[in-house]
Amino acid sequence: MPLLPRSISDAIEALSDLPGIGTRSAERLVFALLKNENGLEQKIGITLQELKKNLHECEQCCHLAEEPLCPICQDSGRSDKQLCVIASPLDLLALERTHEYRGKYHVLHGVISPLDRVRPEDLRMDSLFDRLKKDVPEEIILALSGTAEADATALYLHDELGKIFPGKISRLARGIPSGGDLDYLDAGTLSRAMLERRAFD
Amino acid sequence: MPLLPRSISDAIEALSDLPGIGTRSAERLVFALLKNENGLEQKIGITLQELKKNLHECEQCCHLAEEPLCPICQDSGRSDKQLCVIASPLDLLALERTHEYRGKYHVLHGVISPLDRVRPEDLRMDSLFDRLKKDVPEEIILALSGTAEADATALYLHDELGKIFPGKISRLARGIPSGGDLDYLDAGTLSRAMLERRAFD
Repeated sequence: MPLLPRSISDAIEALSDLPGIGTRSAERLVFALLKNENGLEQKIGITLQELKKNLHECEQCCHLAEEPLCPICQDSGRSDKQLCVIASPLDLLALERTHEYRGKYHVLHGVISPLDRVRPEDLRMDSLFDRLKKDVPEEIILALSGTAEADATALYLHDELGKIFPGKISRLARGIPSGGDLDYLDAGTLSRAMLERRAFD
Repeated sequence: MPLLPRSISDAIEALSDLPGIGTRSAERLVFALLKNENGLEQKIGITLQELKKNLHECEQCCHLAEEPLCPICQDSGRSDKQLCVIASPLDLLALERTHEYRGKYHVLHGVISPLDRVRPEDLRMDSLFDRLKKDVPEEIILALSGTAEADATALYLHDELGKIFPGKISRLARGIPSGGDLDYLDAGTLSRAMLERRAFD
């Protein structure tokens, strides 16, 4: 015998398919929605059903967009002198939160990962190389994460870009995170921080 | 300038209105849905829009139901000799996970809380008292939580039930949780566990 009406258990089952949401969390969310009197379940339901409509990749940078160009490529206030290569739109949001970068982006939509059968041609690298034929920035920043796959992707891109791009290619600094305790850090991070230490000025 | 297409930022905004889901979590969920190729965003969208349709409280126990009686009240395999009074359907799910209880329930939909302006008449107490006029169990178990409001509600119910119900009224045992370290426990829990200690048999 089921314990819950089908509409409730259907919603719990659907929400628990989300990454990081287990059955217990899904139950709490659904009962919070049942208590909610502002129609939040309708708001979420409608926005999710509309989520992928009219959505495609920006012609220039492969970020997600509803128009041919994404909001960032449309923004004339952003510099074309720097091009930041990232793995996903989430990384774009993270970088924008720093307020340190005012250039453009190129979204690869993944990193090279033989185990997951992601090869260079599965990523948006060709569109990056094509883009560099038209617009040549002064600097390309490979802002990929610290995983082995991201490192391999950065190395591959550095080699390929070196053949066609004469400008500066940089990567994010490696080191200890702000606010972190040394004794909790893994040895890999700490050894990179030691190797890449900077003059104290 | 927005960083994301409107359909994405609308979905992030809607999901971040859920309790316990901040903007960063909502971003991760929406981008997971964008990557999902099984139509999970449609499944969640549809189930949430359908969630409250045909849903009301069970005529007998006030649990949520699509039919006049909830699945538990319809279940002839469950005993009518025990009636477990709980604050919410989530507590019903938690109790059912224990597999220790095979009686019926009554869902109050809250606890008395003067600060939140929840009075006894805002809860499903009258329907409990009415129910006891027709079906008299052998035992009523007040399975309310350990908060001050739940304690006050249990005390109130105990007094009111005492006027009309001749059977046994019990409450959940108080004590140390399974697997818990004594030195991490709050003094209130530990003093109740000491006061209500049991013979070692």
